[in-house]
Amino acid sequence: MENLTAEEVALLRATFEPLTHSVRDLVDATIRTEVDADVVAEAKAAIDGATARLRTRQLDGAFGVRFGADGDQMPWGNAVIGMRNPTAPPLVIHKDSTGAVSTDFHLGAAYEGPPGHVHGGVAALILDHVLGEAASSAERPRLTGTITLRYLRTTRLGSLHAEARIDRTEGVKTFAVGHLSDDEGVTVQAEGVFIQPRWARG
Amino acid sequence: MENLTAEEVALLRATFEPLTHSVRDLVDATIRTEVDADVVAEAKAAIDGATARLRTRQLDGAFGVRFGADGDQMPWGNAVIGMRNPTAPPLVIHKDSTGAVSTDFHLGAAYEGPPGHVHGGVAALILDHVLGEAASSAERPRLTGTITLRYLRTTRLGSLHAEARIDRTEGVKTFAVGHLSDDEGVTVQAEGVFIQPRWARG
Repeated sequence: MENLTAEEVALLRATFEPLTHSVRDLVDATIRTEVDADVVAEAKAAIDGATARLRTRQLDGAFGVRFGADGDQMPWGNAVIGMRNPTAPPLVIHKDSTGAVSTDFHLGAAYEGPPGHVHGGVAALILDHVLGEAASSAERPRLTGTITLRYLRTTRLGSLHAEARIDRTEGVKTFAVGHLSDDEGVTVQAEGVFIQPRWARG
Repeated sequence: MENLTAEEVALLRATFEPLTHSVRDLVDATIRTEVDADVVAEAKAAIDGATARLRTRQLDGAFGVRFGADGDQMPWGNAVIGMRNPTAPPLVIHKDSTGAVSTDFHLGAAYEGPPGHVHGGVAALILDHVLGEAASSAERPRLTGTITLRYLRTTRLGSLHAEARIDRTEGVKTFAVGHLSDDEGVTVQAEGVFIQPRWARG
């Protein structure tokens, strides 16, 4: 939980963001490849070599959250927004002056459920995170209490949009609403109750 | 949508399952590595080489579903159970004689939300899939209509269990319930309505 300077953070990002991007690309290639078994074996050997190199020095467990000098959170291992997590799309979420959040992103082969379409659970993963961001602030993190997802139709893979906002707050409970959409409109609606964990109550 | 023989399916599995496993391991190493920038650059070069090899022949889009000779579905690109998808844990789901389903699996660094714990959205992803499997059969696939998740507490990363069963069916709507648990008990409860898509109605 070191307090990294802005320069140290920039250096870490410059080192690890290209690696993560490459692994994300490899994940897509792994799902879609149709090469012969001997080429697969060559690729596998190169990958195992890279993994062994990376594991010569590593964290004991998961990434967790590190902090910059200004207290900025760096949740780089996060499954949805983690800059260092190749399984994250990753989402880049914008918060406007009203506190509403929105994000435009792309989901490819790794996020498939019904053929050519986004797995319903991936839509839930995205919306849980986006509603949680709308419900939270740096000073007041909030975790999901309950969330309900309503699927209007299947969401095709490709360029997508998600947004959320706070509907109301009652004590430690914040009610947030939002949706996922593709270029033909809203595909999944969500509403949730987000709760300030005990450790974060002032 | 070829009808592959059992032998062809076994050969494809023997070729691609070890590759997917290696990429899954690389994803974990990518998140947790603390090696210096020069080692990261070497690993990245090896990974980019492997990706280029795999992309010399590939599917145009996502994986979709292929079929074995007996009509068995092979949803190998699926985000939760896909044998060829490195972002899938992957879940192996068992269905008992009553139609109830259960699965034991491991979630590591790639599935993190709160430090050391499963992302709430990942719990939603898993439960959406597990309830959907309980609600469906090979002849009657059902997609999520609505699902509600109730988070009792955070779920630690590690060995986990999920299960689901049908509560009742009313026409095209099937109501399923289930939960996620770690070794200290249930962490997330789910209930959902699953609907037979028009194209699958007899």
